[in-house]
Amino acid sequence: MTLSRNLKIAAAAALGLATSAVAYAQSMKPEDAITARRAYHRVIALNFGPLGAMAKGDIPFSVETFKTNSARMASVSSMPVLSYYQDGTDTDAGDVKTRAMPEIWLDWDSFKQKMETMQQEVAKLAEVAQTGDQGAMKAQVGATGKSCKSCHDDFRNK
Amino acid sequence: MTLSRNLKIAAAAALGLATSAVAYAQSMKPEDAITARRAYHRVIALNFGPLGAMAKGDIPFSVETFKTNSARMASVSSMPVLSYYQDGTDTDAGDVKTRAMPEIWLDWDSFKQKMETMQQEVAKLAEVAQTGDQGAMKAQVGATGKSCKSCHDDFRNK
Repeated sequence: MTLSRNLKIAAAAALGLATSAVAYAQSMKPEDAITARRAYHRVIALNFGPLGAMAKGDIPFSVETFKTNSARMASVSSMPVLSYYQDGTDTDAGDVKTRAMPEIWLDWDSFKQKMETMQQEVAKLAEVAQTGDQGAMKAQVGATGKSCKSCHDDFRNK
Repeated sequence: MTLSRNLKIAAAAALGLATSAVAYAQSMKPEDAITARRAYHRVIALNFGPLGAMAKGDIPFSVETFKTNSARMASVSSMPVLSYYQDGTDTDAGDVKTRAMPEIWLDWDSFKQKMETMQQEVAKLAEVAQTGDQGAMKAQVGATGKSCKSCHDDFRNK
């Protein structure tokens, strides 16, 4: 798995991480890495939830909340998430369960691409929030949700 | 527990939440609320880890990483964390375990105060990062870590 490990380190570097932070992330125990990626996705989802509900009209539209949550999503999404999929994290570790499918490591390039697409869509979400254009904001909620679903469909167990 | 619930809603409102977002958060299942608060704390800790290591000299000091991580901590810490300690989340829920001590709900004001102190220290951490003054940044890492520990000592099981 040395090649895949190197790919992941390269991917983390491409995400703009300082080398020291990569080294730091690489030192995690498998259960900590799985917990890290689950927390990463959960915090993004917690912030996306109200935006999805706004886009569907389930709760009143708040441009202020949209700006705050999308900025937070952009900030969190830029964390070195690919490094949390380090070697040895393809199965449950200790008490920590994972829904990651083996396909992540069998098709790392595709997984990496989908993760980066999500990060790009989230960055756009934060950008469009600044315009205050509710139609554009709702459309970008759709594009962002699609990028989440695309990766879940291929790489996350039910 | 109606009074405690009202206190929590008031606390969430004081944190600058839109009413719709409070209502949204209040609708969570206990296991989701526990997962939310664990993810919240984990993402903050993931970003704080390298800053602590820098302050101790375990990894090279990077002003850039300090700025990025402290800004991320400030953004995440302003999430409505008190609402994730809603009624019915004082024990494990389903497969989701909690280390929350009953004292959280028995002494809500103290818990709320300590959470807010952490949020203030994290905000200061992001501010001091902007100065580039490494001595001040290291000192504020200490103050921030102290605010985490103070709450963990009183309200988190080992």
